[in-house]
Amino acid sequence: MGGEATDGIRRIGMVVGLRDEAEAAYRRLHADDEPGVRDLLARHHIRNFSIFVQRLPDGRLYEFAYYEYVGSDLEADLAALGAEPRNRAWLAACDPMQRPLPGADSWTVMERIYFQP
Amino acid sequence: MGGEATDGIRRIGMVVGLRDEAEAAYRRLHADDEPGVRDLLARHHIRNFSIFVQRLPDGRLYEFAYYEYVGSDLEADLAALGAEPRNRAWLAACDPMQRPLPGADSWTVMERIYFQP
Repeated sequence: MGGEATDGIRRIGMVVGLRDEAEAAYRRLHADDEPGVRDLLARHHIRNFSIFVQRLPDGRLYEFAYYEYVGSDLEADLAALGAEPRNRAWLAACDPMQRPLPGADSWTVMERIYFQP
Repeated sequence: MGGEATDGIRRIGMVVGLRDEAEAAYRRLHADDEPGVRDLLARHHIRNFSIFVQRLPDGRLYEFAYYEYVGSDLEADLAALGAEPRNRAWLAACDPMQRPLPGADSWTVMERIYFQP
């Protein structure tokens, strides 16, 4: 398997579907001037977070996210983030806009096969 | 539109299909111990390059790439990279393994809608 970094930073790629009828509202929620949960991400050692959108050949919209985790316990930070009331409210707004992959509840973490520093 | 960074780094997300029958060979070419064109990417100011793979609900494999451009002229660097004989040989090996999206020749650059430093 490829994609191992040696700098202690974990690089996470994720995918989820985006409902056509929710695209405009989703974009508004994620606009540069929307605070959203940006402060909570930073507090839990999540940084350099990008979300991209693309319509794929099946005719549907997908979102692809990339972020870097710079803390020492990703699972603990994700659990603590998930327990933050403001993050729960945020997901309650965003989740219905998305189409998780079959078997998933939300974003699906993808396998990394290449990494070049 | 969201996703604007203020640090001068351009963050690019791309997508392309990966042919099932080529997956093993593609992974081998991109393994950590394969030099590939890593030196050429660095020379042309491309860094922090990750590729992820995921099978989507249409039953097909897709690749998602993320990289950062730290030079001052992305288009010029991409053109110079594209003219490097070793990069041409690299693409001649990789391109047949991939399924570009309809209307594309290779990777499709995606729209970024969110960025959190």
